Amino acid sequence: QLHTHMQDKFFPLQLVEWVLRGISCVILLNNPLSGALILAALLLESPWQALLGMLGLLASTFTAIILGQDREEVSSGLHGFNGMLVALLMGVFSSAGDWYWWLLLPVCLGGAATTFLSSSLAPVLDRWDLPVSVFPFNTVILLYLACTGTSNPYFPNHPAQPPGAPENTNHSQLHVPQLLQGVVLGVGQIFACGTVGPSLLILGAVFLFSPILAVYALLGSGISTMAGLSMSVQHSFLYSGLSGFNGALGCMVVGVFYILNWRTHLLSIANALLSAYTDIALSNLLGVLGLPASSWAATLTGTLMLLLTGKNLKEYRIPTGKVAS
Amino acid sequence: QLHTHMQDKFFPLQLVEWVLRGISCVILLNNPLSGALILAALLLESPWQALLGMLGLLASTFTAIILGQDREEVSSGLHGFNGMLVALLMGVFSSAGDWYWWLLLPVCLGGAATTFLSSSLAPVLDRWDLPVSVFPFNTVILLYLACTGTSNPYFPNHPAQPPGAPENTNHSQLHVPQLLQGVVLGVGQIFACGTVGPSLLILGAVFLFSPILAVYALLGSGISTMAGLSMSVQHSFLYSGLSGFNGALGCMVVGVFYILNWRTHLLSIANALLSAYTDIALSNLLGVLGLPASSWAATLTGTLMLLLTGKNLKEYRIPTGKVAS
Amino acid sequence: QLHTHMQDKFFPLQLVEWVLRGISCVILLNNPLSGALILAALLLESPWQALLGMLGLLASTFTAIILGQDREEVSSGLHGFNGMLVALLMGVFSSAGDWYWWLLLPVCLGGAATTFLSSSLAPVLDRWDLPVSVFPFNTVILLYLACTGTSNPYFPNHPAQPPGAPENTNHSQLHVPQLLQGVVLGVGQIFACGTVGPSLLILGAVFLFSPILAVYALLGSGISTMAGLSMSVQHSFLYSGLSGFNGALGCMVVGVFYILNWRTHLLSIANALLSAYTDIALSNLLGVLGLPASSWAATLTGTLMLLLTGKNLKEYRIPTGKVAS
Repeated sequence: QLHTHMQDKFFPLQLVEWVLRGISCVILLNNPLSGALILAALLLESPWQALLGMLGLLASTFTAIILGQDREEVSSGLHGFNGMLVALLMGVFSSAGDWYWWLLLPVCLGGAATTFLSSSLAPVLDRWDLPVSVFPFNTVILLYLACTGTSNPYFPNHPAQPPGAPENTNHSQLHVPQLLQGVVLGVGQIFACGTVGPSLLILGAVFLFSPILAVYALLGSGISTMAGLSMSVQHSFLYSGLSGFNGALGCMVVGVFYILNWRTHLLSIANALLSAYTDIALSNLLGVLGLPASSWAATLTGTLMLLLTGKNLKEYRIPTGKVAS
Repeated sequence: QLHTHMQDKFFPLQLVEWVLRGISCVILLNNPLSGALILAALLLESPWQALLGMLGLLASTFTAIILGQDREEVSSGLHGFNGMLVALLMGVFSSAGDWYWWLLLPVCLGGAATTFLSSSLAPVLDRWDLPVSVFPFNTVILLYLACTGTSNPYFPNHPAQPPGAPENTNHSQLHVPQLLQGVVLGVGQIFACGTVGPSLLILGAVFLFSPILAVYALLGSGISTMAGLSMSVQHSFLYSGLSGFNGALGCMVVGVFYILNWRTHLLSIANALLSAYTDIALSNLLGVLGLPASSWAATLTGTLMLLLTGKNLKEYRIPTGKVAS
Repeated sequence: QLHTHMQDKFFPLQLVEWVLRGISCVILLNNPLSGALILAALLLESPWQALLGMLGLLASTFTAIILGQDREEVSSGLHGFNGMLVALLMGVFSSAGDWYWWLLLPVCLGGAATTFLSSSLAPVLDRWDLPVSVFPFNTVILLYLACTGTSNPYFPNHPAQPPGAPENTNHSQLHVPQLLQGVVLGVGQIFACGTVGPSLLILGAVFLFSPILAVYALLGSGISTMAGLSMSVQHSFLYSGLSGFNGALGCMVVGVFYILNWRTHLLSIANALLSAYTDIALSNLLGVLGLPASSWAATLTGTLMLLLTGKNLKEYRIPTGKVAS
């Protein structure tokens, strides 16, 4: 309704709506209000990060307009969230500190690159009714970090640690309250947020759109953290929410693309597990090169879930075109 | 005939047939008798390994039933062999010794994961009339080994050695009888068997189904071993059959999917070579990370062979649907 | 016209035309005269390299004839250029020196392998009207170098250096004339040529076919070199043209597959940038294993460019079938 209402408004106002929708798309929502709440969370976490995110989002949205992508898709924010994620991750991994203005350059280029990737992957994935999802983000951030590395004189980055590496200190006792906090942070880590307040705000944004999805996000993050425990990953991974966010996304993707019933509930739990273990495996592999696995695991297993052919599940699958709106 | 006869029987008996067919599917056969012979070989090699294999096979078959996969496919064993292979490899790479009961957990989860992958890859590969083959097995075992690693407190693994690494001892003389034994073991290594007796039993199971396929298996293993010699891989790779099994599979896949004549004979030799060299390359690459290339090489080159467009070969290609039965 | 004229000629003469067309196909041309000029450049650079290149080209062309590939495709050289590139790169990376006759063996096998890959990838890529391009070359050379490694007793290779590695010497001053020479060498590096004379001859061959493409080649190489500067890659990469050739190819691919106008001019520049940065990223990643990224970057980004769906560009895309002729 808001969407139809906005179509007569002048461009800057429309753009605001697109941007807010784009922000919410990161976490599989499509709701400007949720987007505004998430933006507030980002500002609370770090204004510099929020600025980077907005710039990346605008860069990729404008690239989409220049390329002449479908206006309907642009206005529902589908061409912005990959750019935003790339920008946020560039900011988090940069070891040059906040307000390092040169970073705006790769943020704009990276944002634009995601749109090229989205535009090109769409016809390939569309053959199997699959969404482009965050494949462009994952690809671009991996290439950016591989390109710049840790000792680049202009754009130095922190190296990512493999979660399976042995602890530096002796095997210390697990701290349960920190573990529970890590489950909540898992939701925030989807936007590279590592503090409790913003993570709760983001969880609120999900709740606003769909309470059941908020439950899924927490459930997925919890399952994923337990998977991390079962593989005895470094405690810092569990406490920071890095163990949880792929599971959260994996659980939510089933909630968004399948009609809810007890079978799809089980499927969402299965996918959270699959996503969590895949993330540990990929993080270990990429961590050898100092690279993060970002959300590759959730993206890959989520895509697999949408391809399932078993007749007990297929009837509950919502076609991709009907999900976005 | 047996298959039709079994359909009226009660479930446990049917299941036995499915399982035995599933075992034979690993090596591109579809015959319960061959499956029984291979099961005997596995029991002879190690009862623990046979147990793991059966459990993996059952886990993936039951997952297929729960997901509601096509009953016809389940009953011909197509949803079991990936789980079985994952279980066998988990057992072989585990450094916790035999009868380490905790291993049953990842075996069940890994078996189930292969079914999700099979179910999802099928619609993608089906566009080009390709079978899912052992892609799920290769993916799941690689992720499992990357996830657990060599120093995991619960599920430690042996690291895989790159075959191209320089020999530890000085360049010793090649031992021809051991080399010939390696060719036979190459057939056994398809089921992770490293001793002569079980390998001969497995070869017998192939011979029972199709004598020409047994010749192909030995021929492919031999070609593959020679390819290993030409790249001067470590002698232990040649003697243990690890050099041979990708070539054996590569040779057999042409024998199964193409009508036999002199052209396809040449193609099977070409594919054995291609598969063997690809395996050395992938083993060297993954070996850097301590991971095995398992049967990626044979799976990838076999899939390529099924896509060939040249008109001299295309007419002899048997459609995938007609091969399984 | 020449093509129709040649069809009545006897086989060796026809073959010469196919070979020359094949050579020109490497650099996205299709013109026997350009092919002859490039062959002259290769002979000038190193007769041994020229011999290897010809052998690889013939091996893959004959394999295509044996497989029964479409005669029209064979005669326009489409089944030769991948084999030629594999052979050239094998020669460049071999540390056994020139006129090491054993190298002819992998050159022939590698050339044949590219044809198998071309034949198999064609039906997959054809679904999205994509050309097979140099995917087979990139795959085969990577597998060959991974298979043989640097310490192989029969086929030893030089390791590839990651461009992002810190300089051995202290950060010396940039030498501008050498940098400009590197831009010209970037065109030559498409054929693994590292000297100025042959590079200019190859540029001339492009100019002969289409002056605008020659401008694109230089422009792309220049942009790519600047991208290398912005990431402060090793100076040797900039001076040798290794930084430039992926950008040159990236720029040219847009020029060949899109009708020229100011929009596609911008696209070609964007793709040169994308290709250049992707190449640095991939070279850093593969360089850890001592492997080169060859032209993976240009091939991948070029393929993406052909998939773009934005309506501002799609109307200018030339269908793949109409480009080759």
